[in-house]
Formats: sequence, structure tokens, C-alpha cells
Amino acid sequence: MGRVTVRRRVTRIDVEAATTSTGPDTISVEEPLELRVGGSALTVTMRTPGHDIELVHGFLLGEGLIRSADDVRMARYCEGAVVSGETGVDENTYNVVDVTLAEGVALPPASAARSFFTNSSCGVCGKASIEQLRTTSAHDIRSDRTEIAAKVVVEMPDTLRRHQRSFERTGGLHAAGLFTADGDLLVAREDVGRHNAVDKVVGWAALNGHLPGTGLVLMVSSRASFELTQKAVMAGIPCLAAVSAPSSLAVEAAEDAGLTLLGFVRGTRLNVYAGAERVTTS
Amino acid sequence: MGRVTVRRRVTRIDVEAATTSTGPDTISVEEPLELRVGGSALTVTMRTPGHDIELVHGFLLGEGLIRSADDVRMARYCEGAVVSGETGVDENTYNVVDVTLAEGVALPPASAARSFFTNSSCGVCGKASIEQLRTTSAHDIRSDRTEIAAKVVVEMPDTLRRHQRSFERTGGLHAAGLFTADGDLLVAREDVGRHNAVDKVVGWAALNGHLPGTGLVLMVSSRASFELTQKAVMAGIPCLAAVSAPSSLAVEAAEDAGLTLLGFVRGTRLNVYAGAERVTTS
Repeated sequence: MGRVTVRRRVTRIDVEAATTSTGPDTISVEEPLELRVGGSALTVTMRTPGHDIELVHGFLLGEGLIRSADDVRMARYCEGAVVSGETGVDENTYNVVDVTLAEGVALPPASAARSFFTNSSCGVCGKASIEQLRTTSAHDIRSDRTEIAAKVVVEMPDTLRRHQRSFERTGGLHAAGLFTADGDLLVAREDVGRHNAVDKVVGWAALNGHLPGTGLVLMVSSRASFELTQKAVMAGIPCLAAVSAPSSLAVEAAEDAGLTLLGFVRGTRLNVYAGAERVTTS
Repeated sequence: MGRVTVRRRVTRIDVEAATTSTGPDTISVEEPLELRVGGSALTVTMRTPGHDIELVHGFLLGEGLIRSADDVRMARYCEGAVVSGETGVDENTYNVVDVTLAEGVALPPASAARSFFTNSSCGVCGKASIEQLRTTSAHDIRSDRTEIAAKVVVEMPDTLRRHQRSFERTGGLHAAGLFTADGDLLVAREDVGRHNAVDKVVGWAALNGHLPGTGLVLMVSSRASFELTQKAVMAGIPCLAAVSAPSSLAVEAAEDAGLTLLGFVRGTRLNVYAGAERVTTS
């Protein structure tokens, strides 16, 4: 519990220097946290483990569901939330927090209240999230043998930037673009939310006969979270490339699905976190 | 509809050059989009208007609720979603999209499916989101007369960075910190999600007797969205400062609530987007 970072093997490619090296890298941990209030699941958020009791207090305050810490009688990790550990012994996931509200404090009725993003079938650990993605996806991207040249990918951020209408003026928009493996940009979209920018790109692909996205590369101007990995896999796109860092769960989901996951695509360099067999350097 | 950016007046302060100037700035638009399927609200996302039909297709695909565009019979802006325009005539908000699924395509039953973040009382426009925040908040931050010195704020990003345990190693974590107006750091937290980092900070404040956050500054390493503005207001914190850009709805919500909103806090400079009366430059 409480791991903020993990070490993973990563392949670093520098196109200009024509070097490829493999070594350990430190990656931010992303794991689901389920918040239960009075025994019922209220929300699931993808977060970095640690300070989870603070996290649920802050969430409840931000949504106006409590007014102060006094409104919470008890907040603790759910004891029943276990997975089978490597030794065969059940281990607490520390991914479910149970909140009991103080007497007289009640959540507003569902009809009046917000209901939150929640996912009862996933719930308690990253492994379950990945499994659910595997069973939901209509496409097997593992069978997509597209070759992705590192020298083509390193050009994509600049191409995407040139097509971003508003970023230069506001500095406030995420961009997503869909490229062919030859580096041709099919569509670029921008949004205050990186997940929305990706949804717009995938929706364009669906409406214009480009799904499943066999042979394509989804490039994003942001970090790569589990959510973006999920969107690429669900669209049958074999490669997700990000300008910034991936999360641990994005890497694990990519490995499970056979997705090529590239991060820190900057200048003449990129890192390969999963699916290296598609990446060529010659 | 479809506005990607708006122009707002902003005050630019350079502490080193001892200059203050006011002029127009271009800001990314953030507005809620409600997705209805078969007449029922499925989700609300905060997005930049434009390409909304693509957005809902991408969202439904990503969640596995449709398999291709053929699964959607019709997707269009809801005609009944109107607000009273400036001329007194009802205007479509273009913030509600109605999807009718093709015959034989059904959403999974609620028990098996994910249920999404949704907010029936807010729904259709930014103004309603701001109004809801006003009626929900327990604190009147407008009466908080704290003076916030620009020269103190420009030091906060470096202080926050020094306290970030993991960012330097992974490049993948957002940070949030709570400072006194004198620049003392009370708490710093980091997370793959910027909203989680803020929730952890606010939760810490709740559990340690620092709420309402009168006289405090919430500093974030990211952009400032409506959601972060909401969290500051709900915690009674009079100032939100961000390293990067704010969204239009963040600025409007800050103005409505009397929150001081600072953006692009970098080097010796910062921009004041709302609540300039608290900011001192001497």
C-alpha cells in the first residue's frame, strides 16, 4: 500500500544519436480508490495511493456532502477488500475506504444529489480494471503487426502543435491527434480535458470509417493515464504516444492488451514502455 | 456555440520588473456537456465546446457502450435545452446532446454497467454550474480580506516543487500545496490526478483544523479548471494559484464567488484573473 512510484524496465530511443538503451525507470503509481459511504459505493477515482483518508475527506467536502471533518464518524480501509497475494494469502488492497457519517449527517437523496463516476464491477484493484478492459474490448490489437518507426513518431508532437488552433493563444488546451504509421495526420482535436480531446478524435474516426484503428498512432500532448490507454484499446488503435509520462496502470494495461505505449516523446527522443516489438529504429 | 476561446481582461504582474499591466487575454472555454441516451442523462463532462457529436461517439466507444458508429441511430443537440439569451429570447445552449441508439442496441442494465459522473441539477450551462456552487458552499470567501503579495506567490511553485517527493523521478505527478499568505507551506500532496492532489490537501486541512481556509493560498502545479475552483471555494480558501492556464468557467466561477484566481505563476510573473483586490505589489 501507499506506493507512490514503481520501477519498470523502459527502452530509451534517441533518433538523432541513433542509440537504444534499456534500463529501469521510475513511474507514478495509479490505482483505483473506491469510496463507500454507509456501505454503498459512491465513487471510484484513479489516484496515486497514499493519504487516502485525506483524499476522501477532501472529496466529500468539495462536493458539499460534508461540511467539516466532524461530519465523518469514521473513515478507514475496508477490511474485506482483499486480493489473493503472491504467497496465496489474502492481502488488503487498501483501495477501498469505508466512511461512516456522523449521526444526523446524511447524503442527499440520489434524485437531488450528484451521482458520481462509479464502477462496481471494477472496484478494488488495478488488475480488475485491466481485466475488465480485456473482456470489454471488441478488438484484438495484439494481432496488429504495424511497424512504428521512432523517427516518424518524434515528428508527431510538432505536427500536432501546428494543427492546434488555440493552444498558442491560451496555453490551456490539451491536444490529441490520430496519425498513420507513416506520420500523416488524419485528425487533431483540442479540449480543456485530455480525455475529451481523445474522445473527439476517436469519435471522428468512428464517424469517418477509421475504426478499428488498425495501423494508427494516437498522439496526446499530455500524460498517459489508464483512461487514455483504455480509449486507445477500445478503438483498436495499436499505439498510444504521449508527450509526457505514463502511469503504472497505463503501462500494465498496455502490456496486457498488446498496446505499444510511448512516453516522453520530446525532441529526438522517446521512451518505450510496452509493445516494443512494433517499434523500429532503423 | 462552439467557442473554443474567449477574451477576458487580465492583470499581468512582474515582480522583478515591478510592472503591472491590464489587458485582454485569450482563455480556453470550458462548459458542461450533458450526454443523454434515450432521453436519460448518462454523464456530464466539462469540455471545450465543438465537435460534440464526435465527443459523444468517442465516449460511448471508450466505455464499450457502442461498438461502432452504426450503433447510433441519431445524435443531435437537444432542442429543448435553452437558456434565456441577452435579448430575452431563448437560445439553445448546445450543451446537451441526445443520442438514440440503433435498434437492438441497449445500454447494459444499471447494475452491471458503469454509472457515470452526472449532475442532473446542473446540466446544461456554465451559469447553472456556478449557481449551484454558490448555493452549496458553506463559506463566504468574499468577506475574507486577506492581502496576498505577488512577490510571495511567485516563490510558491519552487517551494512546492522542493516538497514534491516523486515528481523529479517520474515527471508524472501533479502537486497541490496549501500556503499561508506569508508563504509558509502547510502541506503538499501529489497524485496522478490534479483533483486528487487537491482533495488530499483539503482533506488534510479538514482533519487538522485549518478549515475554512481563511487567509490561505491553494497552489497547484497544473491548469485551473472549474473543478479546482469549486474545491477552493467549498473549502473556504480565498485564493487559487496555478502554474498554468485557467479555463473560462474557472474564471467566471472565481468572479462569482469572490475567489482570487492567479494563473501562469512562473518565474517572477503571474496573471490575475479574478479577485485582484486582494493582490498587492508593493
